[in-house]
Amino acid sequence: RIDPERLWDSLMEMAKIGPGIAGGNNRQTLTDADAEGRALFQSWCDAAGLTMGVDTMGNMFATRPGTDPNALPVYMGSHLDTQPTGGKYDGVLGVLGGLEVVRTLNDLDIQTKHPIVIVNWTNEEGTRFAPAMLSSGVFIGKHTQAWAYDRVDAEGKSFGDELKRIGWVGEEPVGTRKMHAMFELHIEQGPILEAEGKDVGVVTHGQGLRWIECTVTGKESHTGSTPMHMRKNAGRGLALVTELVHEIAMANQPGAVGAIGHIDVYPNSRNIIPGKAVFTVDMRTHILDKLNAMVAELMERAPKLCDEIGVEFDCHIVGQFDPPAFDEGCVAAVRAAAEELGYSHMDIVSGAGHDACWINDVAPTAMIMCPCVDGLSHNEAEDITKDWAKAGTDVLLHAVLNTAEI
Amino acid sequence: RIDPERLWDSLMEMAKIGPGIAGGNNRQTLTDADAEGRALFQSWCDAAGLTMGVDTMGNMFATRPGTDPNALPVYMGSHLDTQPTGGKYDGVLGVLGGLEVVRTLNDLDIQTKHPIVIVNWTNEEGTRFAPAMLSSGVFIGKHTQAWAYDRVDAEGKSFGDELKRIGWVGEEPVGTRKMHAMFELHIEQGPILEAEGKDVGVVTHGQGLRWIECTVTGKESHTGSTPMHMRKNAGRGLALVTELVHEIAMANQPGAVGAIGHIDVYPNSRNIIPGKAVFTVDMRTHILDKLNAMVAELMERAPKLCDEIGVEFDCHIVGQFDPPAFDEGCVAAVRAAAEELGYSHMDIVSGAGHDACWINDVAPTAMIMCPCVDGLSHNEAEDITKDWAKAGTDVLLHAVLNTAEI
Ligand SMILES: NC(=O)NCCC(=O)O
Ligand SMILES: NC(=O)NCCC(=O)O
Repeated sequence: RIDPERLWDSLMEMAKIGPGIAGGNNRQTLTDADAEGRALFQSWCDAAGLTMGVDTMGNMFATRPGTDPNALPVYMGSHLDTQPTGGKYDGVLGVLGGLEVVRTLNDLDIQTKHPIVIVNWTNEEGTRFAPAMLSSGVFIGKHTQAWAYDRVDAEGKSFGDELKRIGWVGEEPVGTRKMHAMFELHIEQGPILEAEGKDVGVVTHGQGLRWIECTVTGKESHTGSTPMHMRKNAGRGLALVTELVHEIAMANQPGAVGAIGHIDVYPNSRNIIPGKAVFTVDMRTHILDKLNAMVAELMERAPKLCDEIGVEFDCHIVGQFDPPAFDEGCVAAVRAAAEELGYSHMDIVSGAGHDACWINDVAPTAMIMCPCVDGLSHNEAEDITKDWAKAGTDVLLHAVLNTAEI
Repeated sequence: RIDPERLWDSLMEMAKIGPGIAGGNNRQTLTDADAEGRALFQSWCDAAGLTMGVDTMGNMFATRPGTDPNALPVYMGSHLDTQPTGGKYDGVLGVLGGLEVVRTLNDLDIQTKHPIVIVNWTNEEGTRFAPAMLSSGVFIGKHTQAWAYDRVDAEGKSFGDELKRIGWVGEEPVGTRKMHAMFELHIEQGPILEAEGKDVGVVTHGQGLRWIECTVTGKESHTGSTPMHMRKNAGRGLALVTELVHEIAMANQPGAVGAIGHIDVYPNSRNIIPGKAVFTVDMRTHILDKLNAMVAELMERAPKLCDEIGVEFDCHIVGQFDPPAFDEGCVAAVRAAAEELGYSHMDIVSGAGHDACWINDVAPTAMIMCPCVDGLSHNEAEDITKDWAKAGTDVLLHAVLNTAEI
């Protein structure tokens, strides 16, 4: 079993870097704080006797050698970057949980046939440089590196320039590594495990996702002096589509979700009728056909609803991934580990996207989920208990050990 | 009759100060551009032989003496400040139209019994420092000067400090002037006059206004990993209230209007369900009881609608004025002038608030409206024709002359 105090101390130590304003973290990707976090992680890996490799996307790979020179490594990890108002555990638990696994193996002097590698994927969050899970996406060839380098933040700085600036462009070409398997421990970011009173979530599937950026175009005009029948109020288009998205998600239960998180209305002045509303619909479910049907229904009905109130509707997809089904062998290894260690567990679908969802395309992959208080995440108040962190990391240890073979 | 070319040249000259990005203006109140605009106006007033008085709110009063030392002045004017993406005519036409009236009287060597004063009211727009019509509101005692000085802009700068910084704190205590009458020429900012093919609008009433700032509180959570039945989506509260406002306005036709122009959702991220939406409902009509009933209906039904979807609704009024009925004598003077000059005209209700709406509380007041292309205003593309500017200013000249007596 792992050492929960040591794990917790490392989590708290990392959380000092890029502190937030309300007890959480702002350690956004490719900032100075990210560089500092990477350096701390590297120093811990050095101390644990690991060899660090860095690829051209800044992905970090810390290797513990195996006994069989021909065996492919077993990977475990997640990401160290955070949301601008993020928590201390989202991503970090998976990376430092991996470190704790290695430290435990070192303590117990356990050798494995397969090498074990802890990975820190660059820019999982995607808030500063959209889209999310950018570097694992490049790793599997979903995006090209050139395209990724050209992503810009709100200030116009590019991913490529910023990666260089913080000094983390590695020599290793991205995506050349082969993996025996990959495990990602991550907080659930939802309320199910806590509500069901389970220590561990065995992730069998992930939801597929579509981000549909919509623009409703009306006509800017004065709220006072424009008669009702002469208005083209883009805000009403937003309202009708908000309820349509909800209706479509509800009609596709169980499992489907849909909401609008990002909204900009123009010119956003109290006495001007919005002439334009730009917003992103987030739709997900774990069944691909259903997901595509939901999007098709939105694209068919939204323009009609908008047309009825005299505004125009346009949309295009700005982010997407299909629902991953994780590797049966890896999932079984996770379930068996939880069982064997006596932790309560349940199968669960990951509602969020994770680096593991991309890696699953190129290697046998599975995820372990850790409950989080109130399902709160992407929020500085994000919280987990030490016991939950221990359970998840114990399961990671055993699943990895079983897969890497003693 | 006035000189339309001279008027137009002055309008174009003023529009060079604080240029916008799309052919309009950004000459927001108490900026360096505002100071420059004031200086230009002052130089024109000096050249026309007027005496400038400035009060402690920065309101500018340029006086042309009358022949009767005991006669109170007739005022005419509007405002020189603009929206951040404003037009060249909103407010400016009323001030420079007043200047053109004085220049015409000078040309014709006409003396009036009552003095004539051109006024430029500070901060009519209210975008930088809310509320709108701030300094005419202080002039009539609706707000205190101390309260007005404490208004802050988005950068935290106060009205009082900025007025001082640009050097326009006058010596004259605000609100001490008595008026024989006041006339404000202003663009309609709506589509009615153009649609009806009229040269001039005779403004009989103004709409009353209520700005109701609403906060819907739900719970921030992940768009992917939060099941539908566990969501508290503040964005849905916004959607339901958007449609409720529309419904209430439609049920109170003719004349009532309602919309939401300003919306902020938090944290405004594509994959976070909005935990909070803050927005302002703008409701207007020219019948006071109806206006109050509309607000009461909103306040009764919105909390229930929100409650049904598990979110909370709160609101408070952040801006209001009751419907003004302009002075019958002044309105008749405007109508008679249009008639006598042979301009097509119609009675109209001002949908927007204007400095004249406040001044109407302390002096006989009326407004003259000039059509604007497509009803477009608060927009850099705002436009009027030279003929419309001429018609409105001719009517201003004659209404003022009849009231100031030759
Ligand atoms: N874990 C996580 O929040 N990833 C970002 C992509 C998503 O919205 O699911
Ligand atoms: N004229 C004008 O737009 N005034 C601002 C107050 C309002 O919204 O009516």
